[in-house]
Amino acid sequence: MNKYIAEVLGTFALVFCGTGAIVINEQSGGVITHVGVAITFGLIVMAMIYALGGISGAHMNPAVTIAFTVAKRFPLKQVLPYIISQTVGAILASLTLKYLFPSNQTLGATLPAGSAIQSFVLEFILTFFLMLVIINVATGSKEQGMFAGLAIGSTVLLEAMFAGPVSGASMNPIRSIAPALVSGHTEHLWVYILAPILGALFAISIFRVLHYKTQLDNQSK
Amino acid sequence: MNKYIAEVLGTFALVFCGTGAIVINEQSGGVITHVGVAITFGLIVMAMIYALGGISGAHMNPAVTIAFTVAKRFPLKQVLPYIISQTVGAILASLTLKYLFPSNQTLGATLPAGSAIQSFVLEFILTFFLMLVIINVATGSKEQGMFAGLAIGSTVLLEAMFAGPVSGASMNPIRSIAPALVSGHTEHLWVYILAPILGALFAISIFRVLHYKTQLDNQSK
Amino acid sequence: MNKYIAEVLGTFALVFCGTGAIVINEQSGGVITHVGVAITFGLIVMAMIYALGGISGAHMNPAVTIAFTVAKRFPLKQVLPYIISQTVGAILASLTLKYLFPSNQTLGATLPAGSAIQSFVLEFILTFFLMLVIINVATGSKEQGMFAGLAIGSTVLLEAMFAGPVSGASMNPIRSIAPALVSGHTEHLWVYILAPILGALFAISIFRVLHYKTQLDNQSK
Amino acid sequence: MNKYIAEVLGTFALVFCGTGAIVINEQSGGVITHVGVAITFGLIVMAMIYALGGISGAHMNPAVTIAFTVAKRFPLKQVLPYIISQTVGAILASLTLKYLFPSNQTLGATLPAGSAIQSFVLEFILTFFLMLVIINVATGSKEQGMFAGLAIGSTVLLEAMFAGPVSGASMNPIRSIAPALVSGHTEHLWVYILAPILGALFAISIFRVLHYKTQLDNQSK
Repeated sequence: MNKYIAEVLGTFALVFCGTGAIVINEQSGGVITHVGVAITFGLIVMAMIYALGGISGAHMNPAVTIAFTVAKRFPLKQVLPYIISQTVGAILASLTLKYLFPSNQTLGATLPAGSAIQSFVLEFILTFFLMLVIINVATGSKEQGMFAGLAIGSTVLLEAMFAGPVSGASMNPIRSIAPALVSGHTEHLWVYILAPILGALFAISIFRVLHYKTQLDNQSK
Repeated sequence: MNKYIAEVLGTFALVFCGTGAIVINEQSGGVITHVGVAITFGLIVMAMIYALGGISGAHMNPAVTIAFTVAKRFPLKQVLPYIISQTVGAILASLTLKYLFPSNQTLGATLPAGSAIQSFVLEFILTFFLMLVIINVATGSKEQGMFAGLAIGSTVLLEAMFAGPVSGASMNPIRSIAPALVSGHTEHLWVYILAPILGALFAISIFRVLHYKTQLDNQSK
Repeated sequence: MNKYIAEVLGTFALVFCGTGAIVINEQSGGVITHVGVAITFGLIVMAMIYALGGISGAHMNPAVTIAFTVAKRFPLKQVLPYIISQTVGAILASLTLKYLFPSNQTLGATLPAGSAIQSFVLEFILTFFLMLVIINVATGSKEQGMFAGLAIGSTVLLEAMFAGPVSGASMNPIRSIAPALVSGHTEHLWVYILAPILGALFAISIFRVLHYKTQLDNQSK
Repeated sequence: MNKYIAEVLGTFALVFCGTGAIVINEQSGGVITHVGVAITFGLIVMAMIYALGGISGAHMNPAVTIAFTVAKRFPLKQVLPYIISQTVGAILASLTLKYLFPSNQTLGATLPAGSAIQSFVLEFILTFFLMLVIINVATGSKEQGMFAGLAIGSTVLLEAMFAGPVSGASMNPIRSIAPALVSGHTEHLWVYILAPILGALFAISIFRVLHYKTQLDNQSK
């Protein structure tokens, strides 16, 4: 049960701070800048991993939860409660931002700057590399685990930095669904649901190949 | 006694560097930028935790000291000396900035950009998550403790980044009181005293819920 | 074999994110800024070291692979497969960027802003210090090894930050070759092939001097 | 002897990258920005500490060497060779920048933006806190030592960020002397020689007070 509370808190923090940075940047004449928005997204993920990772794993992302489950590193029966917790946290965050900034139109919703397919391919690749980092540091050496927050937070930061102007750099279905639902901008939402899940699952496939080879190498020694 | 000296030094550094960044940004035509101000606030907190954390815990914030006390993780009889030390450090910092930059009007005081209630809600949420990070890394595993400076400093950095344009992102009564008193801009000061303390206390309540559940889970194993 | 897959993935990520930041910055009116481009380059190197360092060492750079080999810290027979893997990853990254952003002219290729010799000297020095950091943290204490990702990623970040406007701050032959070949801007490519390799080899020479003296000092104790 | 080579290399890197960022920012129309210059200074210090700290301690700063000696944590007979090594590295760096950018006027020399006394007070406080961080992490727990590079580099970064527009945020006599001598802008150089040394020495005095009290506290337990 405390895992679910941690997921509600973590996802609330991610959506409140991350999309809040986009909203406040719009409300304040761009003073945060795109660079500041990307830094906010990366550091809130890092901070939540160090604060809540020991309790729930700090997924804060249905694509991550699904990918861990397919990789047999997360129990199937907790998938639905985790996704519900993430949804509750994200929706509450978008509602709080709507209460604080009632004049804001999109609440940080992600929309493709170009074609939908361009953003789909980009989100697929972004989430693939994010999940590749997550699964490797989560299952690696003790040292890798200690640096998990730094490695994962930095990946979110850099991907938000370079890909944000094209696709919004969501990498996370619920981070896109919550502001879309609350603000009423649900167009192209399929891009941000499908691409992150497929990208994260592809990372698990590649991880298995890397891991399988490692096992063979170790056996042959 | 050396704890109190450490709190004076740490809080002086926090207020001198953090509000100094705001002052020098105004004096130099905005060359530091809002992004640079947020980075300064976050990194001085991180640096002081690594330098002085072993001596005093590097609270540098009355809301943190009060919350730790309510959580029974700080002795009641040291609360007043800690808050006095923090006040001395913060006031000395604002006086030094006034001496160095006599023409500056506000000395980095926090003022709501919109309504007082908007900034109140924001400061409550900001300090809630800051204290949630602090209490979790301070009472968690040895690894979490090692990364305390990085996690807490990053939280201050990201919250100053995204919320600064609205409320000033104080999260700390004495960081707001010192420049307000020295510069004479004490309007709305209640927001920055009450909201951080309430937010930090709410984090302790939530931490207890998370912690209580963890204990039960461990017992049932 | 899994080492080669890791090098393909790591080099793809480095070139896709790093030169992708340059491309998307051009496509979006400069919103990422030069600072954001430098942050992207540094953090993708850091993230890949924490994710893939345990599998392949995460070279992602032929100059690094060659220098490690000359330093007798990498097996000669794996040099060619490593460089082929890096080439495959880098070319695939530039092709993916060309598919996503067909109107972009240079795909993030590096070109000297001033004279070729100015960029040559700069790239030599940049790669010298990058390789000096890499070889020291890779062969140093356990603590240095844990912080390898942070130290190496930060070196790439800072060198891209200050030298990018002059030479592009490549420090990596394949990071320059891939966008040059795919976009057809192969002028001055010799600068970015020769200078990083020579700079990395010079770092090995200096490392040997430092290391030799350390051995003598240890013996005399 | 290898210690001295490490100090030459480290100080060369610090001055070449740090003042190089200022020079290239001027040559390229300000694209690096003040924020990028501050990041460059902080990260090169961090990288050199992780790379060379195990060999020479990575002082790269005569004020640090003098303060460590007064604190009885550095042998008196190595002070002069260390300062000579730092001078050789710094002068070589400024000469290399002059060769690469012959049209640049000041080579990143520090000059007070306001009065000399304002910059003197600021440099005194900046170096005081920098040395306070250095001496605490250098003599503290094993965990503090591991994070020394991060803590010290972040302190340089944040102090360069907020104080750079006023005094140049030197905190280091040789970082100011080298570009001043090579470019011929030696006015106000006394500020940048005297204030950092006095600030670093004052940090040692305060450290002794903190340390003495800690000893008494430990004895009384």
